[in-house]
Amino acid sequence: MNKQILLKSRPIGKPTIENFEIVDALPPLANEGELLVKAKYVSVDPYMRGRMSDAKSYVPPFEVGKAIEGGVVAEVIESHHANFKTGDMVVAPLQWQEIQAVAADKVTKLDKKTAPLSYYLGILGMPGLTAYFGLLEIGKPVAGETVVVSGAAGAVGVVVGQIARIKGCHVIGIAGSDEKKDYLINKLKFDDVINYHTTKNMEEAITKSCPNGVDIYFDNVGGGISDAVIAHINKGARIILCGQISLYNDTEIPVGPRPQSTLLKKSALMQGFIVSNYASRFPEGVRQLSQWLGKDKLSYQETIIKGFERLPEAFIGLFEGKNTGKLLVEME
Amino acid sequence: MNKQILLKSRPIGKPTIENFEIVDALPPLANEGELLVKAKYVSVDPYMRGRMSDAKSYVPPFEVGKAIEGGVVAEVIESHHANFKTGDMVVAPLQWQEIQAVAADKVTKLDKKTAPLSYYLGILGMPGLTAYFGLLEIGKPVAGETVVVSGAAGAVGVVVGQIARIKGCHVIGIAGSDEKKDYLINKLKFDDVINYHTTKNMEEAITKSCPNGVDIYFDNVGGGISDAVIAHINKGARIILCGQISLYNDTEIPVGPRPQSTLLKKSALMQGFIVSNYASRFPEGVRQLSQWLGKDKLSYQETIIKGFERLPEAFIGLFEGKNTGKLLVEME
Repeated sequence: MNKQILLKSRPIGKPTIENFEIVDALPPLANEGELLVKAKYVSVDPYMRGRMSDAKSYVPPFEVGKAIEGGVVAEVIESHHANFKTGDMVVAPLQWQEIQAVAADKVTKLDKKTAPLSYYLGILGMPGLTAYFGLLEIGKPVAGETVVVSGAAGAVGVVVGQIARIKGCHVIGIAGSDEKKDYLINKLKFDDVINYHTTKNMEEAITKSCPNGVDIYFDNVGGGISDAVIAHINKGARIILCGQISLYNDTEIPVGPRPQSTLLKKSALMQGFIVSNYASRFPEGVRQLSQWLGKDKLSYQETIIKGFERLPEAFIGLFEGKNTGKLLVEME
Repeated sequence: MNKQILLKSRPIGKPTIENFEIVDALPPLANEGELLVKAKYVSVDPYMRGRMSDAKSYVPPFEVGKAIEGGVVAEVIESHHANFKTGDMVVAPLQWQEIQAVAADKVTKLDKKTAPLSYYLGILGMPGLTAYFGLLEIGKPVAGETVVVSGAAGAVGVVVGQIARIKGCHVIGIAGSDEKKDYLINKLKFDDVINYHTTKNMEEAITKSCPNGVDIYFDNVGGGISDAVIAHINKGARIILCGQISLYNDTEIPVGPRPQSTLLKKSALMQGFIVSNYASRFPEGVRQLSQWLGKDKLSYQETIIKGFERLPEAFIGLFEGKNTGKLLVEME
């Protein structure tokens, strides 16, 4: 049996188990220039919600009746390419499928010695690079500035906050539980964290945590939380739009206070981005993040769920705020 | 009599004549280092609406019971500073007052030969420099790109569109009358203009005028017109927030579709600015704009109203879309 997970139907609002189907795929065959790979770790990421809808976005939608795709760390079990051999570990955008064939030029070979292999789906992969390039290239943090990050306990947020600390900034996280708050303050050394679930007045809380206003806002969530932060930006502020997870399941166009007047009054910048804009610089990002990890300047936590068939459940959990740090699924 | 115009009361919503009062000011006295100047041309600009409210913004509010301030071209009638002599013409932020004293270091001496003096309140002044630096520094137009400018027939808009044409862009204006549309297309050579007053479906109109999408949006108006443009931006688009005149008279926080998701999907930038951010480079801007004017690459039109006491009426007219090009008041 070669299990595969399909998009059975497009979700309306929050995804449910019924939107997925586990089927038995055909035994794959690798041609010349291809590798046969066996999945080891499979990533679930908020951006994948966008691909489940049929609206145009920066990545094409998944097709109904076809396999879901995402980041996967896999082992080469058969090589038809000179640069790879059986036993090599690779990372690539792959199907949610136990064993599959992939073109060798689509994968990146991993160095097992640098870090645990699962890290290449997190801090040394897409989420870590997203934090690195978004914060440094768009945010351009300066020591002493105040940086706010929403979705602070998520795979991207934990890296953003720690890099901002390395750069000498005052770092405030916004997260959804006291457990996450404790982790961010005590383990990752955030200066303060606002638990938006127990905070009645977000604006008041931000005023208190950011007495000098907000210079950089790294936004993973959007919606009312972001409105409250944007109301407190300083002149010349930079707002980095990385995700809008609070809105991903909306079925209508979300409406809210227009940010334009504030951006105008504050000569502020709001910039959307996707990490692939910086693809040519990924090696630099991985090198720097690895170095910080090696020197214990970055701390990293994963939530690993075991069992391929639990992928849909893990993915849905992203929208329930269940994970602290990177959420991924390990094959049993 | 030395007429002066005060802010009598703060407007709620659209300003009215009752918010202003014409009084007789004390005869001014110029001290050492100061000039006595007589107003010649007085500018009315949309940003001044912000200063009539008491909300904090990028410039401090006017005080109730005190004179309105704005851009003025004036003649030196008495000089107590070595660099100026009687008869010199200057431009400065001054009170709405016929004759007043001003510190010599607050004024800029004008070259009467370069251009008509009134131009220093328009194309060679704040509006022209706003267009120049906003479009070139934030928009970074590339030949072949599509540039949309709202408030296209206003003092800033007419310059934005013409510079975009000089840079080889496809230029679409949005304006509020067929008269303005004719002027922009036939005289200023815009590629197309949408009259938002007679257009039922703005999105459809933008799709038609911008078949390749929108790369740069220079936004002077905000609100629903901007929502329609933003829905059509391309990947990597730049939205320059220069003004939000459609919202200036709102009494509640304006609400609308959140732009963040679109900015995110399109890796697009939205940047607020105020021309004084570029103050150190004003000479460069004036030089380039003068050169283009001299070579007839820029066409320029003013609406000049005569009579100091008509300043309030002229200002209110800005919000009624009455002016094509720069609106100003000439002293009789």
